[in-house]
Amino acid sequence: MNSFINKDFLLQTDAAKELYHNHAKHQPIIDYHCHLNPALIANDYKFDNLGQIWLEGDHYKWRAMRTNGIDEHYVTGKASDWEKFEKWAKTVPYTMRNPLYHWTHLELKTAFGVEELLNPTTAKKIFDTCTEQLRTSEFSARGLMKKYKVEMVGTTDDPIDTLEHHISLKNEGFEIKVLPTWRPDKAMAVENPTDYRAYVEKLSAASGVSISNYNDLLTALRNRHDFFASVGCKLSDHGIEEFYAETYTQAEIAAIFDKVYGGKELTKEEILKFKSAMLYEGAIMDWEKGWTQQFHYGTIRNNNTRLFKQLGPDTGFDSIGDFTVAKAMSRFLNSLDTENKLAKTIIYNLNPRDNDLIATMIGNFQDGTVAGKIQFGSGWWFLDQKMGMEAQMNSLSNLGLLSRFVGMLTDSRSFLSYPRHEYFRRILCNLLGDDIENGLLPASEMKFIGKIVEDISYSNAKGFFGF
Amino acid sequence: MNSFINKDFLLQTDAAKELYHNHAKHQPIIDYHCHLNPALIANDYKFDNLGQIWLEGDHYKWRAMRTNGIDEHYVTGKASDWEKFEKWAKTVPYTMRNPLYHWTHLELKTAFGVEELLNPTTAKKIFDTCTEQLRTSEFSARGLMKKYKVEMVGTTDDPIDTLEHHISLKNEGFEIKVLPTWRPDKAMAVENPTDYRAYVEKLSAASGVSISNYNDLLTALRNRHDFFASVGCKLSDHGIEEFYAETYTQAEIAAIFDKVYGGKELTKEEILKFKSAMLYEGAIMDWEKGWTQQFHYGTIRNNNTRLFKQLGPDTGFDSIGDFTVAKAMSRFLNSLDTENKLAKTIIYNLNPRDNDLIATMIGNFQDGTVAGKIQFGSGWWFLDQKMGMEAQMNSLSNLGLLSRFVGMLTDSRSFLSYPRHEYFRRILCNLLGDDIENGLLPASEMKFIGKIVEDISYSNAKGFFGF
Amino acid sequence: MNSFINKDFLLQTDAAKELYHNHAKHQPIIDYHCHLNPALIANDYKFDNLGQIWLEGDHYKWRAMRTNGIDEHYVTGKASDWEKFEKWAKTVPYTMRNPLYHWTHLELKTAFGVEELLNPTTAKKIFDTCTEQLRTSEFSARGLMKKYKVEMVGTTDDPIDTLEHHISLKNEGFEIKVLPTWRPDKAMAVENPTDYRAYVEKLSAASGVSISNYNDLLTALRNRHDFFASVGCKLSDHGIEEFYAETYTQAEIAAIFDKVYGGKELTKEEILKFKSAMLYEGAIMDWEKGWTQQFHYGTIRNNNTRLFKQLGPDTGFDSIGDFTVAKAMSRFLNSLDTENKLAKTIIYNLNPRDNDLIATMIGNFQDGTVAGKIQFGSGWWFLDQKMGMEAQMNSLSNLGLLSRFVGMLTDSRSFLSYPRHEYFRRILCNLLGDDIENGLLPASEMKFIGKIVEDISYSNAKGFFGF
Repeated sequence: MNSFINKDFLLQTDAAKELYHNHAKHQPIIDYHCHLNPALIANDYKFDNLGQIWLEGDHYKWRAMRTNGIDEHYVTGKASDWEKFEKWAKTVPYTMRNPLYHWTHLELKTAFGVEELLNPTTAKKIFDTCTEQLRTSEFSARGLMKKYKVEMVGTTDDPIDTLEHHISLKNEGFEIKVLPTWRPDKAMAVENPTDYRAYVEKLSAASGVSISNYNDLLTALRNRHDFFASVGCKLSDHGIEEFYAETYTQAEIAAIFDKVYGGKELTKEEILKFKSAMLYEGAIMDWEKGWTQQFHYGTIRNNNTRLFKQLGPDTGFDSIGDFTVAKAMSRFLNSLDTENKLAKTIIYNLNPRDNDLIATMIGNFQDGTVAGKIQFGSGWWFLDQKMGMEAQMNSLSNLGLLSRFVGMLTDSRSFLSYPRHEYFRRILCNLLGDDIENGLLPASEMKFIGKIVEDISYSNAKGFFGF
Repeated sequence: MNSFINKDFLLQTDAAKELYHNHAKHQPIIDYHCHLNPALIANDYKFDNLGQIWLEGDHYKWRAMRTNGIDEHYVTGKASDWEKFEKWAKTVPYTMRNPLYHWTHLELKTAFGVEELLNPTTAKKIFDTCTEQLRTSEFSARGLMKKYKVEMVGTTDDPIDTLEHHISLKNEGFEIKVLPTWRPDKAMAVENPTDYRAYVEKLSAASGVSISNYNDLLTALRNRHDFFASVGCKLSDHGIEEFYAETYTQAEIAAIFDKVYGGKELTKEEILKFKSAMLYEGAIMDWEKGWTQQFHYGTIRNNNTRLFKQLGPDTGFDSIGDFTVAKAMSRFLNSLDTENKLAKTIIYNLNPRDNDLIATMIGNFQDGTVAGKIQFGSGWWFLDQKMGMEAQMNSLSNLGLLSRFVGMLTDSRSFLSYPRHEYFRRILCNLLGDDIENGLLPASEMKFIGKIVEDISYSNAKGFFGF
Repeated sequence: MNSFINKDFLLQTDAAKELYHNHAKHQPIIDYHCHLNPALIANDYKFDNLGQIWLEGDHYKWRAMRTNGIDEHYVTGKASDWEKFEKWAKTVPYTMRNPLYHWTHLELKTAFGVEELLNPTTAKKIFDTCTEQLRTSEFSARGLMKKYKVEMVGTTDDPIDTLEHHISLKNEGFEIKVLPTWRPDKAMAVENPTDYRAYVEKLSAASGVSISNYNDLLTALRNRHDFFASVGCKLSDHGIEEFYAETYTQAEIAAIFDKVYGGKELTKEEILKFKSAMLYEGAIMDWEKGWTQQFHYGTIRNNNTRLFKQLGPDTGFDSIGDFTVAKAMSRFLNSLDTENKLAKTIIYNLNPRDNDLIATMIGNFQDGTVAGKIQFGSGWWFLDQKMGMEAQMNSLSNLGLLSRFVGMLTDSRSFLSYPRHEYFRRILCNLLGDDIENGLLPASEMKFIGKIVEDISYSNAKGFFGF
């Protein structure tokens, strides 16, 4: 086959091909961290057209379109799905070397069987063909999950969420596990007293715990944490700029809670102390339940005030920060380890200049109880591309054990993102294949290396999280 | 041809060769940022010998010579041009893997047709051959510019500069555009009150605006800004350690100006506020005129006090800093975007560990009005070598749109530096060629990829800056 | 030969093979920085078994075992050497892509002639074979040094050390130079007043200088510095988090000494000032004697308090920091250069994100007196692997002169680590071979490139340190 996305896409050696086709390709998908809307799964949503499924909410594509000189009207504005798609098709050739170029054509190929390249000439035909398919049940939310052999997805949920869709899917016996993830970012977002109080009141309602002080807050959170566990939750997740590991006393935190709950702005130091306490308390809860805690750190969000006011968060105006993190990260993990209460942990950095730092940091807290107990998370967000994933795997390899890696997750809002697992696996196999070809790994060990590929593609995650 | 710098130098795939020879090679040069002395162009300077044109003012070569154990007498001292050249020739073989090794032989080949490698054995012959050629009119300042098909150069000029040479070249109708660039670094250099006052007095004289307060300062600068525009200026440039984006009031800045103008040392905070104000005001002027603003940040200059006292600035004692920049850079760009007054912008970093940070930062302020409105500048200074340029282009590719890149500039003081455009283009073509060869880009799209090569080599810059 | 570690291991081009086999392979080893115990050399220690020589004290292997889920009992606990070895053998296949996988098999091959891969199946046989050999005199401490053609080793020693073993080896006329290195870390470790006083008292005893104030401290240190010189010491070494270059007065430092010696905790500022003074004074002593000073910076040590209490330092709980260093490093070097008292210097960073920073920083202080006077140290600790060494050499090449590099050192506690020089040389030759193959270096210059290989492998170090 001579098409661009052919069966040996990204596989540059015979060893890579063998590893991918014999060991990676057929593994099911465990997508342990994503941002899918569980309602769409519960209702088995059907998409209107290719423009809608691709361009509604995809801030990666939005950024590319803006960079390509496309007016906001066609990006997030009132233009029709087709008009937006047309502008996207015009942009696609200009995304060469950006992961969007590969993702786009991988999705077209693996979901729809489309092998043509998307550009202004092919736009209409591709739009029509794919839209037609999307309207069949094979391409519903559930249909797409089955098509890609998804075994489990982990959504991202707020403590106050009812998890009604997760529950109904469970009760219904839907064959793919759809489990919630505990993401309590708002419970520590004390920057704005009014918003925070409103959140705490909702948390009170959700938990049935009347909250008038810090202890009540913890009781309410613990109540919801138990509830999440009852629905099958096994992971937490935290979106933080930096690791918070200030020293504090319980009395200080209680007073800080009273202050912010009473409507007063906190000082910067108070905010850091409060977040340190919340991060610690949450980590203890996760440890108690045997969950895995995830930390996504290092983003600077909403850099563009003008467009934030117009479009809200998560619209393509976030970027990579340059925070100093090593000492705080160490203090945080150490405070838990000291009490023998450090849960399984995954750390994701947004700035790749920290790759080697993290790959060594995790080694400080490996305690021999679980293989790969502290994990360096797969290339996240901006780093979710070939070089980003290779850099993460190279750092992990050089400074830790790649073989114990729990591997890929989509982190995506889209039901069409599953080919990113294929993308990851091809890149993994290619990396190992290069090493074999260059004599850096022994060719005689293909069987064991094949097992490593299977482990990283599927088995490590399955065993590690305990789904 | 078996010489070192042969026609396929750096081109490792057939695709790379095709791209370079069919699409890159024949493009004219737009050298939109350099440090050429415009007087040498106006007077069509002829060089005495190869030692002079190569070693006078070239701090790259000076550093290499010092590292190679050459005494300062032969670096910047009183030794003759030939003696210095001889020491340089002795050093050249030891620069293997440094860009100087490639630049040296590229310049010998493309300017003088010399294919021998420079070393102590060949030094005399090469010196004589090239010196003889340099004394012909084909090798004058203008001759060299024509030889390399230069279409435009942007020099770097202080607001108080008369721009007399730019004006005379324009009046004379010289076929190559020689345009000034507005570089107001000294207008914000308030660290030394005495030097600053002296500068302000010169600015007053140049502008004809009597300056006794901050508003006068702005008026004078605006007057000069208008004058630069009248001579064809379309870019500004700022050499800054960090981005300055402190909050301030007009009253504060006025008071700070009075204080420093009155001869008093400013506090660190006052300096930062003043620079924040100046950076902002300059950016507004650039936006009003539709110029492109450039920021070169992250250098620590004049690290060696002993040799600074002896030799002055720009003599090879600068290095890469490790400043924390993301939040300030974001605040600065956002303050302008908020008012819809963000000019086209190019950001150049000196520490490559910020590459990914910048490649994502620019995405926050792409607004769809101009393709590639906010640019990640080409590998600068120490990064102006194969790996540095590849790293910059890879970050830009992975996190933005390489296709919209305005490409290369020499940033050089030398009339022999134009082959760096060739060097860049070969590297660009090789990068794309590798991708095609490895199936990362579709081989079927050679025509479009060829257009991207032409765009990055020439057309993007031409369109973007509006020369 | 088809074994994994064959004669062309890591050599991917013909040029690389030629460079390695003709120019690198036969060079003796100058291991100018290591942590061997000199008593073991003086007593010509014989090892009990392969478990002991490999697993006693090797925190690299310990980290890998913990990450692989091995209980501490088998890592640093009371399990027998064989039991520990068995767990290590079980871990080895999981270290693929980690340098341990290469080091393990390189050591088995080059020391013991074992070509089988280590894994649970081969463990017993390999343990027995190697243990049998270890008990012969060919495999004693000295035997191993001779086997690997070691010409010199530089141990790491405290100023209070008697250097008795170095002296006895010298007196005995042992053919391999075993020289001490001055490592005065404890003389500036003023964080804990009690420990510091105890150390100063030992220093007083060792030097015969009664110490009651700061001047006495310097006198005592200088006395020991002279003593180290008399035993052949030519290098100092400093393990520091950051470079210390605060301003201070002699009176301040005298007062700080009195305070800490009197048992009072110092403030953070006092600690920084004191360290700045000690670093400076030590540097002056090194310069006076023509020594080379080494700085290993950027580690965060003992991150895991629980296991630090159990196991002590250097047990595998250190990691890479993210300190801001450029300005302080510049101030420190400049303060010495300003007085024309900057000794030859080697800087080793632990965070590779500083590679380019350092490669440019050293250029600021190259003064032409010695080729490569200020050196960028070879990939250290976590960076002592193929990609880490390549990254260091690439930065040094792009921004300095690779040709003047003093090359590899093991930094190891083990008599089996010498193959790391072979590993380094293969990587060096492969890097140069790639460049030749790709036309980045002229194939016609093989002879000169061969000389560069010899220089970096051996001659540069020999000449630079003046052994």
